[in-house]
Amino acid sequence: MDFKNQLEQKRQAVNNELCLLLEKQIRINSALKKALVYTLSGQGKRIRGALTLWCCEIISGLVNHDALIAASAIEMVHTYSLVHDDLPAMDDDDLRRGRPTCHKAFDEATAILAGDALLTLGFEVLANEISDSSMAVKLISELAQAAGAAGMIAGQMADLKAEKKQGSLEQLEYIHTSKTAKMFQCAAVFGGITGGAEQKQLQYLSEYGLKTGLSFQIADDILDVSASSEQLGKTAGKDTKAGKLTYPAVLGLEESRLLEKKLADDAVALLEPFGEKAEILRLLTLALLERTK
Amino acid sequence: MDFKNQLEQKRQAVNNELCLLLEKQIRINSALKKALVYTLSGQGKRIRGALTLWCCEIISGLVNHDALIAASAIEMVHTYSLVHDDLPAMDDDDLRRGRPTCHKAFDEATAILAGDALLTLGFEVLANEISDSSMAVKLISELAQAAGAAGMIAGQMADLKAEKKQGSLEQLEYIHTSKTAKMFQCAAVFGGITGGAEQKQLQYLSEYGLKTGLSFQIADDILDVSASSEQLGKTAGKDTKAGKLTYPAVLGLEESRLLEKKLADDAVALLEPFGEKAEILRLLTLALLERTK
Repeated sequence: MDFKNQLEQKRQAVNNELCLLLEKQIRINSALKKALVYTLSGQGKRIRGALTLWCCEIISGLVNHDALIAASAIEMVHTYSLVHDDLPAMDDDDLRRGRPTCHKAFDEATAILAGDALLTLGFEVLANEISDSSMAVKLISELAQAAGAAGMIAGQMADLKAEKKQGSLEQLEYIHTSKTAKMFQCAAVFGGITGGAEQKQLQYLSEYGLKTGLSFQIADDILDVSASSEQLGKTAGKDTKAGKLTYPAVLGLEESRLLEKKLADDAVALLEPFGEKAEILRLLTLALLERTK
Repeated sequence: MDFKNQLEQKRQAVNNELCLLLEKQIRINSALKKALVYTLSGQGKRIRGALTLWCCEIISGLVNHDALIAASAIEMVHTYSLVHDDLPAMDDDDLRRGRPTCHKAFDEATAILAGDALLTLGFEVLANEISDSSMAVKLISELAQAAGAAGMIAGQMADLKAEKKQGSLEQLEYIHTSKTAKMFQCAAVFGGITGGAEQKQLQYLSEYGLKTGLSFQIADDILDVSASSEQLGKTAGKDTKAGKLTYPAVLGLEESRLLEKKLADDAVALLEPFGEKAEILRLLTLALLERTK
């Protein structure tokens, strides 16, 4: 089976689990549920969730229920970050995953609350559905660190403040690592933890996730200047227009492509100890490097 | 020591713990940290946190470290809900705890992210600081249910949608229970869990919290029509102006006061099994009933 089909298989597994978990929330407010179903049923690529499932498979030989829950939790938290990031006071975007953003399809208040609900639900499913409480606590701690004030939110904050002024490469790396790479790292670690990885294996997966995530975000910067809105399913050329701090803006397009490639090579090198079993992650890193949307 | 001083003592204990927990977050983005320190250092009454500490004391005879962490987590999550609730797209308020709201003191994007960060941090401290992982998972599950899409957020959503149209008493009870009472319930249960309560004791504390919380929210409705902004530290008369669904609007002021009193009596009756040890909770319910701000 080629990479595209393998990703599609994992995407469907994550989407099924997300549906099941949402259906369990029977006492949920109905207007809110409508918004949650809308945002979660968007055509997300589910790369973070797939990364969790693949890492679990590499370590344990199969995708277990804990990994499915962990993958769903990380996609809930990723989706909440998009919903809030698209708000008018933030990046102010009308288009996401090829459809109107949550605040456009509903209203701003609903989008704020739907984001809050998804973030809370991410932690709730880890607390309620993971088989072992010591594993659940580990996952919750990892996710909170990756997504919180020292992780993704720090990156979003720095990203907003960096707009419209020239920043250093160091600052740019801090922003992209915090905003994007840490959640990739968390997704890989989630797979390792749920698969029962040893400490050394966890470290390799963790560093692989971080480097792949940074490479992914540089590709995002490059696509913003080189792809169309139709291709991306979100507004193209926005970063440039907003005067955002991006790799192409600081390093130029050519240097950015070289750095992206270097990070991808470094990521793949970290997979060496896993041998053939990690082939899918090599394909993932390559696919992210060559993606056009 | 009178009730006011006892509450002040607990308020300081919670505030100290909040400071310590925030200081531990050394890698936090600095602009974000400024906003977090600002919102958490507001003159909150810390009633929910105090309720946790008192319930722990009633069960175990003392306030342990787990209870302090649990009390801090619930105050973080309560504070995040105020920060988001005050946003222009939500209740649009300029004043909170006697000072400019977070989005007024900083900007909207910072307030959205600061709220997100506080919510995440609430779960993070429970995962990282609670001594036993099975207890941590229980607390996280309780908090997520109370604050999430079937709890506080459901109440906020219904509250927003109920504005400007007349609703039923049933709907009003749903809103106030979800929006406010469930977090009081969670605070009481937090004290029970960290104190090592038995199932029966947890049930009494849980129902006491729920009834006291609902009584508290009715008092809030009443104060909105009867107190000044200066007294309240937030804008008075807002609910009426916004045509909100409130107890005075549906039942009238007199009936609302009677219901508030009845709920407080029911709450106090639930404390009977705890005897003299629960005296502080009787004083709390009475103080909330007679509060003027």
